[in-house]
Parts: sequence; structure tokens; C-alpha cells
Amino acid sequence: MSFEAAVHTKAIQLDQLCLDMCASAGSGHPTTCMSLGHLVTVLLYHTMRWLPDHPRYPTSDRLVLSEGHAVPIIYAAFADLGAAIGKGTERRPMTREDAMSLREVDSYIDGHPNPMEGFPFFDAATGSLGQGLSVAAGLALAARNDGLDKRIYCIIGDGESREGQIWEAIDFISDHKLVGVLPIFNCNAYGQASTVSDMQSADTLRRKLEAAGYEVKSIDGHDPAAIRDAFEAFRAREADATPMALIARTVKGWGAACMQGGGWHGKPASGDKLQLAHEELSATSVSLTSALAGDELRIYPPDEHTSTRTEPDEPMTFTEAMKKYDMETALRAGKLATRKAFGLALRAIGHANPEVVVLDADVRNSTFTEWFANDKDLANRFYECKIAEQNMYSVGAGLAAAGKIPFCSTFAKFVTRGYDQIEMAINSGANLKIVGSHAGISLAADGPSQMSLPDIAWFRSLSTCTDHRGNPACYVLQPADAFAAYGLTQVMAEYTGACYMRTLRPEVEFLYNESTVFNLGKFEVLNEGRDLLLVATGYMVHECNKALEALDKAGIDATLVDLYSIPFDADALLDIANQNNWHILTVEDNYGGSMGSAVADACTESGDAFTIEQMYVRRIPKSARTEDEILKYCGLHHTDIARKAASMLGVVAV
Amino acid sequence: MSFEAAVHTKAIQLDQLCLDMCASAGSGHPTTCMSLGHLVTVLLYHTMRWLPDHPRYPTSDRLVLSEGHAVPIIYAAFADLGAAIGKGTERRPMTREDAMSLREVDSYIDGHPNPMEGFPFFDAATGSLGQGLSVAAGLALAARNDGLDKRIYCIIGDGESREGQIWEAIDFISDHKLVGVLPIFNCNAYGQASTVSDMQSADTLRRKLEAAGYEVKSIDGHDPAAIRDAFEAFRAREADATPMALIARTVKGWGAACMQGGGWHGKPASGDKLQLAHEELSATSVSLTSALAGDELRIYPPDEHTSTRTEPDEPMTFTEAMKKYDMETALRAGKLATRKAFGLALRAIGHANPEVVVLDADVRNSTFTEWFANDKDLANRFYECKIAEQNMYSVGAGLAAAGKIPFCSTFAKFVTRGYDQIEMAINSGANLKIVGSHAGISLAADGPSQMSLPDIAWFRSLSTCTDHRGNPACYVLQPADAFAAYGLTQVMAEYTGACYMRTLRPEVEFLYNESTVFNLGKFEVLNEGRDLLLVATGYMVHECNKALEALDKAGIDATLVDLYSIPFDADALLDIANQNNWHILTVEDNYGGSMGSAVADACTESGDAFTIEQMYVRRIPKSARTEDEILKYCGLHHTDIARKAASMLGVVAV
Repeated sequence: MSFEAAVHTKAIQLDQLCLDMCASAGSGHPTTCMSLGHLVTVLLYHTMRWLPDHPRYPTSDRLVLSEGHAVPIIYAAFADLGAAIGKGTERRPMTREDAMSLREVDSYIDGHPNPMEGFPFFDAATGSLGQGLSVAAGLALAARNDGLDKRIYCIIGDGESREGQIWEAIDFISDHKLVGVLPIFNCNAYGQASTVSDMQSADTLRRKLEAAGYEVKSIDGHDPAAIRDAFEAFRAREADATPMALIARTVKGWGAACMQGGGWHGKPASGDKLQLAHEELSATSVSLTSALAGDELRIYPPDEHTSTRTEPDEPMTFTEAMKKYDMETALRAGKLATRKAFGLALRAIGHANPEVVVLDADVRNSTFTEWFANDKDLANRFYECKIAEQNMYSVGAGLAAAGKIPFCSTFAKFVTRGYDQIEMAINSGANLKIVGSHAGISLAADGPSQMSLPDIAWFRSLSTCTDHRGNPACYVLQPADAFAAYGLTQVMAEYTGACYMRTLRPEVEFLYNESTVFNLGKFEVLNEGRDLLLVATGYMVHECNKALEALDKAGIDATLVDLYSIPFDADALLDIANQNNWHILTVEDNYGGSMGSAVADACTESGDAFTIEQMYVRRIPKSARTEDEILKYCGLHHTDIARKAASMLGVVAV
Repeated sequence: MSFEAAVHTKAIQLDQLCLDMCASAGSGHPTTCMSLGHLVTVLLYHTMRWLPDHPRYPTSDRLVLSEGHAVPIIYAAFADLGAAIGKGTERRPMTREDAMSLREVDSYIDGHPNPMEGFPFFDAATGSLGQGLSVAAGLALAARNDGLDKRIYCIIGDGESREGQIWEAIDFISDHKLVGVLPIFNCNAYGQASTVSDMQSADTLRRKLEAAGYEVKSIDGHDPAAIRDAFEAFRAREADATPMALIARTVKGWGAACMQGGGWHGKPASGDKLQLAHEELSATSVSLTSALAGDELRIYPPDEHTSTRTEPDEPMTFTEAMKKYDMETALRAGKLATRKAFGLALRAIGHANPEVVVLDADVRNSTFTEWFANDKDLANRFYECKIAEQNMYSVGAGLAAAGKIPFCSTFAKFVTRGYDQIEMAINSGANLKIVGSHAGISLAADGPSQMSLPDIAWFRSLSTCTDHRGNPACYVLQPADAFAAYGLTQVMAEYTGACYMRTLRPEVEFLYNESTVFNLGKFEVLNEGRDLLLVATGYMVHECNKALEALDKAGIDATLVDLYSIPFDADALLDIANQNNWHILTVEDNYGGSMGSAVADACTESGDAFTIEQMYVRRIPKSARTEDEILKYCGLHHTDIARKAASMLGVVAV
């Protein structure tokens, strides 16, 4: 009985603090917090093995709050425990005063879970719904990989479980037998605008989870003993058991009748209403706790962590890898698709760095991550995600939070499926590597449903802001040949932060050699001229190379820059533009607002007078059987480039 | 017996044509087609009521091929039937020669379903997986709305059903009782890289669908009678029945043993292998068809269509609507959030135009689509999608294909969730209206998980290419006040094509009045000066307005343009820049590569010498309690703007 009384007492204290925090902020979701008071109390004060003064301790159990808007209930526990908060290496115990600073611009406690702003307990930023269970799966994969016996608890809203990604994660957890993850569905029956659909009722969720092969426990989410017992049952499960899920029936605004029912989502109480809610909660506390708690609630520490990390080896060079893996024919032919060079690089880096892991969405034989997956020494670090991209990126975020270096791979077109997840991963500070193959229009035959076209614009936008480390929030990389793809894959693995790299379907000729050094923010000059600067990326570097010949015949001496990185060294590029009379032509095989626009932005900041023309895909493409045909269709064939370049200089006969 | 023989014969003929088409193209997915030969034959030659010479006839049953890579099997049937193909109003019977042009640059038959390139049978472009069932749901909603008794068949791959969006659609169909939709799961057990997961096996899919309350029929997908009977059972269902789903166990590469098993995904046979596959199929045909088909297969026509469409009325003006709907207090106060003006406009347009429909993802009380939803005369055209954005946009695409004008509404941040679906809708030519609320950083307290920041860059990229009608593939609209939001909502409804509009959380003052005319591609001049051109959008127009005062005090006479549309009239803007000594400062509250970059692109094309500086969000934001605090945090407060503007002109004391 005293465990129950202790949990009720604590839960109500936390609920009351949530009411005050949200009242202080003038916004927030106190009623959602109140539906979670008991679950969070049992987790943080009893079940989870963790260290309040070291909330990211490597061996500790983890909590992912997928329904991020309920975060004040966690902050309340931290304030109560004096658990550690703070940015970077600065850490100090959280106080009640901190709690009352909820959502302040200089507060460590943001409106939604935000580990990079001073609340390191969380592994990932949440608040855009449906992503947490995938993050939890990533944490569990990393723990298994590191041989750590961690449990990962994930709280999901019932309304939130409408997001298809939740079910992608449910399938993924089952496929990979991640029995260390416990999905906890908080069934309080209310969404924002109204009650949840019958398709997300506690009963339907139970049936859906059972259909997916889960063992499901349904409990009253305000019954301390039932919660404790469910968690104990979960902790006691064998490693080869089927996954388990918990359905917790809860009350939104539990303990304060005046805040229950529709219309209370995302609304703090104030004034008389706040006082009434406090009184009701206090009365609930008295009615439920015949004896006071004493010290019945005890937090157990995790196992001591002994680091097993070793410094990565120096990976093989491209030539060494080509020789080692029986690709000497291609090496001699001087031609290799960048997607293959990426697969080769992954394999080489995988051997050199045990933290590198690879994820793919059922296209590993097209993206060439299969060269990593099929290597028996690496296979246990390859995670097949099947056709479910959203889940893949959030699993990557979880793996990154646990110190892994995840490369997430699929067609560049399908990366779009996970843009929200990728942005949340970036907000989380995740060291995520995103690689999209079959990029641009050069895949030709499959048509626009498989072509990535606004991708550069989107990732470029992320590159214009700085992350919490002061670096671009994302680097955009577009290797034009196999050496570049191989080198940039290595660079991505060595760099801490998000990167997006595009690889290409067609076989392309080597442009570089072992002596070329590729780096974030740099570019390569392939031809030095003085009349016109051609700036190209990816496949279009090859088209521009061909255009150079025609231009040369027309007496035009053009410079060709392979701008493989965004952002790039703008001063260095402008110097070259200056040497070419400030005539610039940019060429890319995606929609506008992308690389060419980035070059234009760099130029306009200089204040010099120049001419810049951009060539890009200006119509929705379609299928074509060859690269040449689709390039002509989009006006990006090398003859189009030569013609445009000549016309910029007033030369017509090209 | 003769029905069965006829189906086998026809299915094998179509399978064989698929083999030849893919061989001719040198790519494609013949084995997937062969798994669907019988299902497609029964559908197109027996079950569906449609007109081969009028494949988009309004009352005809519809087929959505969600696993778009199987499209040659449909093309084969069209070639066999001489069904109509062609772009726009040009129509002619398809021939076998057309079939052999698969994936040619000048062919009507693209690598994946692509209605805008000359194959009007399809309502939506598919090929990016997981979207078709949502499109089917949209078609069914429209049919119900129009009082049409249409059946919508949707073929989904088993591997594809890993996409969470499929399960969002399953829930949506149940919520809205769309019993006219039949999801058909093609369970051939193979994905691309390997076999499908146990989580997508025929048995597990059956359990999942039953858990979702569906009546599920499992059949051999190569048994003509079983297929026919299942479809008849579906057609016979009452309007108030639970939804039904079909699990069809099929064989990838059916009928040709030499093309079965792993390793045959997306690969055409050629040479000897092609001949062997043909021989095996022919042998299969002989063994299965003791009697020849005769004319047993007959296509039934749909009901005759009688148009009930009427011309929309002239909608109310903003002032009229404010008065009619009891908002005179706000009207007098001269202040209204743009999200509310949008909700008001929807309500007014809803009354004027019966084709306008509205979708929202559980945030209608924040986006103010509830003003449409709660109007009893409009409620039957409001579709609550719950927290599942991907499904919402594809449902919108289906509604648009059936002639509706769908407004899809949620927070701008969560629109990201559906970018792939939106791009596919644009490829489909869908008349889709996308509205994102709480845009930019002005929502402040909730923090970055609820802020849209790279959204303008992404939609702007789509605006740089033309759609199949020759218009920008998407317009980007950012109203700064209630008049603009109201007017632009009307403009969106009147325009045929995709538009993205951002609305704002805070209440903002009126900048305009009834005499202001808003239009796609236009902008407004709010202040005419001569020293400097300030170009702003959305909330930042108000900050710039405040900055004007400080600049005026410092003796700087600045022009202020509200650039509410991308693309915009570049010549007109450059004229104004010219009148301001080519000094331009752009101000927006999202990441870069966006509006400012579009202005820079317009300037660079002019070739004039100018100075342009861009102010945008250059760090990942966080929570703050007020708009002013978050603006300061991001360096976008009006004092920051005034300081930057002054410094551009060499004035320091602002």
C-alpha cells in the first residue's frame, strides 16, 4: 500500500508543478501531463536504472517521450529530483525556479524535448509526432551492438499513433527482435480537435499490436501497482521473446475534474481555474493516500560504464579498395557509378571504424549498400528497414544519439519521405549521414516518380543556418565521379554533423585521382579558362566537360568548377569568377533555388557587377530511355550548355 | 469453365506483351506485372464498369495502381483493347506499337503511371510507394459527395504495405466508411532486395486488416473464379457495411519458372531468357485452357453521366464575411490573425463554390478550418484526417482528380511530412491547395519542433519549374495581413494548380483594405522611398513597417515591398530597386535559399550592379515566450532590421 501512496503523492506533486509551469509560460499542455503523472513517476522514481546527476550516462535506461508536448511532466520530476540540466559540458541541478522558466528564451527547458538546448536527458528532439518509437528502436539497436543491457521506454499518444510511422516502427522492432523497447500507448482518448478515432481506441490499438505479433498488456495508467507490475514483466522478458507493448488507459486532466473533457488540449489554467485545479488535485491526493510516502520510491543506478571505444583505423584508399574487392576491371576502365563508389567506401570505412552502421530501405542492391550488408564482418551493423523511410531516419537519429555513425540510404527521391524526421534529427544534433541515390534526372527511364528534383533546394536551406555546434546544419554533397564519392563518404564519416550526399545511377568516367583531396566546403577546378566560369555539380560536370570542347572550337576559353559542396568557399569561387570577367553559368539537373541560386547569393553579397545565368530543370520531367534524351528534353544536354555559354558571350556559332 | 479459360488466355497474352515491352525498353518490372496478370484481366475485362474509349468518364469505376512499377500490365490491356491514350483533349486508340514505345521520351506511356503525359486512365501519378490507397480514398469521398455509385479498386504491393501511409489510409477509409474502396494486396512475397518481412506476409496483413475492423478475403490471385467472386462480393456490399480488403496470394513471374524467385525484381528478360519465358508462358496457357475464350469476357459500361456542376457564386468580401459571421469587434479593432482570415475565407468560399472541400489533421481549432467544419451547410465537405499528414495530401490528390478543390490544412511544420505526396500530386496535375499555419518563428513558445523553416525553399524550388499546363508547378503565398490571407484564399480557389500558403499564429494589424487586389505573381508596395528597398513577407512585413520609423528618424527614406507571392513580377520589382539606387534588403523568418534568394536570382539575371543583403533565420531557433524575444534571438527584430538597413547605407546611428 505504501508504494501506491508514494506514487500517488509524487504524481500529484508533479501534476501540480506542471499546472504552475504552464500557467507561468502562458502555454503548454498540462492536461496531457496529468494523464502521464503516474506512468512517469513509476518510470523515473522506480523502474528506470539511471543517474539523475548524469542523465545521459551510457549504460542507463532511456525514455523517449514521443508525444513531446507532455514534456513538463519530465521537467517537473527533474526539478523535484534536482537532476542535472545544462548545455554542453555545463551541468547543474535543476530547481523549481528553472521549472517556472518553461519556454523562456534563455531557459534550458524548451516547449518540447530539445536536448541541444540544455536538457540532455533526451536523446532526440520530439514534438513533431510519430517519431519517438523509431528513435527508441535506434537506441536499442545501438545498445545491442555495444553489448549493453538497456531498456528503452517510449511514451506515445493515442492520437499520435495515427501516424503511419508508429506502425513502421512496430514492424521494425519486430523484424529486428528489439525486445528491449517498450512502446507505452497513453490512451487518454483525446486528440487536439476532438476525441481520438475508434481506430486509435485502446481496444483497437490492442488488436493492431496483437496482429503485429506483440504481447500486449492493458492497464489503468493511474494504478501504481499495475504500472509497476507491467514494467517488471517487461524487464523480466527473455532476449528471444516477442516484443511487448503496454496500453495505458489514462485520463486527460486526471485528478482535476474541472480540466477534463474536450476543449482542454494545449491550454494552461489560470486564475480561479488554476486554483480550483490545485484544490481538486490536493483533494484527490488526500483521498488516495492514507499513509504518507516516506522513502518508498528509490531510483536504482545503471551498471558502471566501461568504455570499449577504440580509435578508428585509417581506411583504405579508393584504389586499394578497388583492388581488394576485385574491381580492377572497372579501375582500369576508368569508369564507375558514384553509387558504387559509395558502397565501396562504406565497406572500407566499416572495417576501419566499428561505429559506422548502415541502414537501407529495401534498395540495397540499387544503392550498393549491399556491399556493406553482404560482408560477413559488417553484416551485423547493417539494418534493413524495408520500404519505410520515415522510420529509417528516426532510427538513424536514435543510433546517432547512442554514438553510432549511421548512414541512411535510399533513392534520393524517397529521402523526401523523411524530411520532417531529418529536420528533427538535425534539431537533435544527430550525427546523421543521408545518402540519396539515382539523384536528378540521369536515371532517365523510370521517370519523375523516382527522380529527386527539389532536394538540393531543401537541404541547401538547412545549410544556410548553423547547428548547435556552430557548423552548417547540413552539408550538401554532390560527387561527380567515383573518387569524389569515395572521398566524400570518408569525409562524412569523420565529420560530426548532418550531411546529405547524392549519388548517381549511370556509370561515369573518373575525373580525379588519389591525389585529389575532397573536403566539406571545397570545390575542384577541372579546367582553367578566362572567358566564362561554368559551375556544375554531379552528373552535369560531365556534360559541362563535353561542352568545353565545343566552346573551345568557338574560341571560348571556359573555366569549369565542380562545386561538389554546399556551402562552399565563396571567396575562392568569386576570385575565379573575377578571372573570368564575372561571367558565370551554373548547371545542375534539379529544380531551381538550388546550387545556382547559392552561387548567385554568394555573388550578390560581393556587390560586384556580373552576369550569372542558371541552367536547371525547368519543366516536370518524364521517362526517357537514355541520359542524352532526358537531358535534351530538359534543355541540359552538353549542346544546350555550349549554346547557352556562347550566347552569354555574344557568340552564336556553337 | 470458359470464363476461367478466357481469363487465363488473356492474362497470359498480357504477361507476354509485358515481357516484350520491358525487353524493348531495356528496363521495367515484368515479373511484378506477371503477378498481376489475372487480377488486372478480371478487373479491366469483366468487373470494372468503364469505357475504354473514354478512360476518365466521370461515372466509371476507377483503378489506382499504387505499386506503380507494375504499370506495363495496364498498358498491355490498353494496347489489347485499343483503349484511348493521348495528351489533353487529343485521344486515339492505343496500339501494340505504342506499347513497344514504353519509356521512350516521346511516348505516352511512362515508366510509372503518369496521367499528365498521355495516359488519362490514371487519376494520379504513382511510383513513389504507399500513396495509392489514400488517392483511392479521395476518389471515393468525391464520388459520395457527387452522389455517384463508383467503385475504386486499389492494387498495393505487399512490400509496399510496409509504408505507414497505407495504414493511415486504412484508418481513414474506416473512419469515413468508404466501403466503395477495395484495397487489393498483391502478396507475391518479394520486395526489391529480398523477400518481404513476415510483418508483410499474407497472413500478417490479414491479421492487421482484421484488427482494423476490415472484412478480409484471401484468395489465390491467379484463380479467375476466385478473383471474380471476391470482386462480386465487394460490389454487392451495402453502403453501411464495414470496409473490405482483398489479400491475393500471387507469384512474381507467374507462368514462367525461369523468372521466378529472388533477383528478378525490376529486371527485363532478353535474348534466350526472354524466349524461354515466352515458351513457358505459352505452355502454361495450353495447360490451363482446355477451351478457347470466345467472347466470354465483356466490359460493362458505367451509368451515363449527367453533369450537375453549376458555376460558383461570387463569394463575399472580407468585410461582408466579418460582419456576417459576428466578427465586427475584430473588424473595428483592425487586427486579425491570418490563420483566422483563412478560416473565414474558406467558409465564405465554401458557400459560394460547392466543389471546395477542406481537410485537416486534428488541428482545425488552431488552423481555423473549424469555421468551415462547424458550419452545418459545409460540414459534409470537411474531412477530418486525424494526425496523419501523408494520407491527407494523397486524399487531396484523389479529390482533385475527381474535380474537387481540396484545401489541405495543418501546421506548416507538419506539411513537411507530406512533401513526397505533394510532389507526386503536382506530377499528377492535381489542383491541390496546401495551407500551413503557425509558419516561421512567430509562434515562439512551442519551439522549433513546431516551426516551419526550410518550407519556403522547398516550395520555391517547385515554383521554378513549369507544370503540364505551363504554369509554375507551385505558387508560394505568404499573406501579411487578414485582407491578404482572405483574398489569396479566394485566388487559390479560382486558380487551377498547386499553391502553398503560409498563415501565422499571432494576431496582426490590417495593412490593406477592400480595395487591395491580391493576385498570383504580384506584390504590394507599402511605402515608397528612394534610398533602400526593403522586401519582406508574412510576419516580417510588420517588423519592417516598424523599422521604417527608425530609418525615417535616421534620414533614410526606405521603400517597403510586401512580396507575398513567389514567383513574382521580377521586372516590376527591379524597377523599384532601380528607384532605390539598387540597394535591397530582404527580410524573412525562415532559413535561407528562400524569398531573399529568389530576389537575388531576379537581380542577377538583370546584369545590373546592385547590393543585396538577406536577413533570415541563421541559427536553429528555440522556444521563447513572446514574438519579440524569438525575433531578437534570431536577429530579426525590427531594431535589427533598421540597424542592418542603415549599415548598408553607411549610417550607423539607428
